[in-house]
Amino acid sequence: MKSHLVTGGAGFIGVNLVRALLSRGNRVTVLDDFSRGRPENIAVFADTPAFSFKRVDCSEAANILNALDGEEYSEIWHLAANSDIPAGVADPAIDLRRTFLTTFAALKAAQSLGATAFHFASSSAIYGDHQDRVIHEDIGPLQPISNYGAMKLASEAQIRAAVEAWLPRASIFRFPNVIGVPATHGVIYDFCYKLLANPLQLDVLGDGSQQKAYLHVDDLVSAMLHISSLGERYAVYNVGPDDAGIRVSAIAECVKNEFAPEASISFGTGSRGWVGDVPRFEYSIERLRATGWKASLSSIQAVQRSVSEIGLQILKS
Amino acid sequence: MKSHLVTGGAGFIGVNLVRALLSRGNRVTVLDDFSRGRPENIAVFADTPAFSFKRVDCSEAANILNALDGEEYSEIWHLAANSDIPAGVADPAIDLRRTFLTTFAALKAAQSLGATAFHFASSSAIYGDHQDRVIHEDIGPLQPISNYGAMKLASEAQIRAAVEAWLPRASIFRFPNVIGVPATHGVIYDFCYKLLANPLQLDVLGDGSQQKAYLHVDDLVSAMLHISSLGERYAVYNVGPDDAGIRVSAIAECVKNEFAPEASISFGTGSRGWVGDVPRFEYSIERLRATGWKASLSSIQAVQRSVSEIGLQILKS
Repeated sequence: MKSHLVTGGAGFIGVNLVRALLSRGNRVTVLDDFSRGRPENIAVFADTPAFSFKRVDCSEAANILNALDGEEYSEIWHLAANSDIPAGVADPAIDLRRTFLTTFAALKAAQSLGATAFHFASSSAIYGDHQDRVIHEDIGPLQPISNYGAMKLASEAQIRAAVEAWLPRASIFRFPNVIGVPATHGVIYDFCYKLLANPLQLDVLGDGSQQKAYLHVDDLVSAMLHISSLGERYAVYNVGPDDAGIRVSAIAECVKNEFAPEASISFGTGSRGWVGDVPRFEYSIERLRATGWKASLSSIQAVQRSVSEIGLQILKS
Repeated sequence: MKSHLVTGGAGFIGVNLVRALLSRGNRVTVLDDFSRGRPENIAVFADTPAFSFKRVDCSEAANILNALDGEEYSEIWHLAANSDIPAGVADPAIDLRRTFLTTFAALKAAQSLGATAFHFASSSAIYGDHQDRVIHEDIGPLQPISNYGAMKLASEAQIRAAVEAWLPRASIFRFPNVIGVPATHGVIYDFCYKLLANPLQLDVLGDGSQQKAYLHVDDLVSAMLHISSLGERYAVYNVGPDDAGIRVSAIAECVKNEFAPEASISFGTGSRGWVGDVPRFEYSIERLRATGWKASLSSIQAVQRSVSEIGLQILKS
């Protein structure tokens, strides 16, 4: 059995990846500081012998190595990051520490652990605002407009230099909005809670015209495993659904129909919801498609499924 | 008088920039930890009332702000960095701390100081190896192959996000090999010292075919002042001479002719001198040329002048 280390493995994407790795028969160790991840997310794995967990702040390599007691790991999945973009806008030190220094530390630890592959959850936020240009993996210039995007780009750069110096293999997954459960934030989650608080009124930030591609987390995990199995030395892939996305207004309608059909929706002004929010972009997944992978759900299907899943999550809680 | 703050102002490029800023009538404060900069470089300014200096490790914003005692600065020139690329290859923590965390800290300090412009000495190392493609500012992908290049790219990303959030104006100077005095490292410097040690023999790393553009530091400073005066919100410029560069073998010849005409030159093998060294690249300076600026010296002229200057520097020391 190959041993996998997943930083941030108690978070939204992490827990879905861990489930998939375990179901493939891998040994998996999760490191998480519970800054965004949650103990209840990984509780389901507690009785699985191939699973282990250590509560660790991954922004220092020594913390990671001390937690692991000399075991070896062949593959590192580095997902630990600050996923709260507005928090990082308010205080850049959050993205520095949680998004970039965790990458720096995970790389250093990976070298000590003898890891042969480093897989990184990057983001479409590294691209910045390209207006109507189609965003393929080799586009320039790269001008992230949030500290989150900046620290994801910084992480990619550090990983690339590691590949030059010592790291046998790296995968970079650049993805836009990922939805599903266990959700902790995001537009669907926000709309659900707003409608729970007031079932008659849904206020939407911005004019609702922001169009984005949405990927269901099951599809993201499927793509990550697929890309990591390609065996490329430095695999950089956009991951997304097979469409140009849907508008925020359509998401609002979808949530309203599920939770509060009586609600009226009111929109703000402007095409940006917050600093760091890119209004719309067209995202090329040609490179990934050429390898034979395709998302099973479109943006609207992913939203519909996530709305149901989040509804169920709220009912249970 | 506008007040300028120069981090790394006791280093090679810094001291040349400081001289130019002072000669234009600006007040200038230099911060430097002397990790690469040297006290003797700034000794010449000691009697200039508009000049002040504080010895500070710029990798913490608090260090910077404590050193400045509440003065205000309109323009920040951030030059502090680890300029020793091989040292950063051996230990990534050096580039993290000296090249990236200094940028992070200088930005945070700039915000506290009420700075309206942040000028950054970036590098052509952010581009990575593009083989025969012409490198213009908007090229992609950006895959730096050294930790130095990675941390310069990380710095650019963080500055770009600051422009989105609060910083009125930023300039990014991307430049290749800069030569002149006071030199502390680099190929000319190395060749000079090798020939001083053994006037009969000059061993060159690599096969001598590496071709690079060389910019004299006087031209670099001229370009930096020119670009910063354009008033652009986010000015990103390649800076270089008006030619495709010269080969390492031509530099070896030039140094030999000046110092030790009897020496024989022997070359190694391979087109890369060390990890992180990009063998050759073609560097577009069209964007800068379009603004009306042009280097006064070609690559070979810059090398010739630098060889004389370094010779004089060695004689004096």
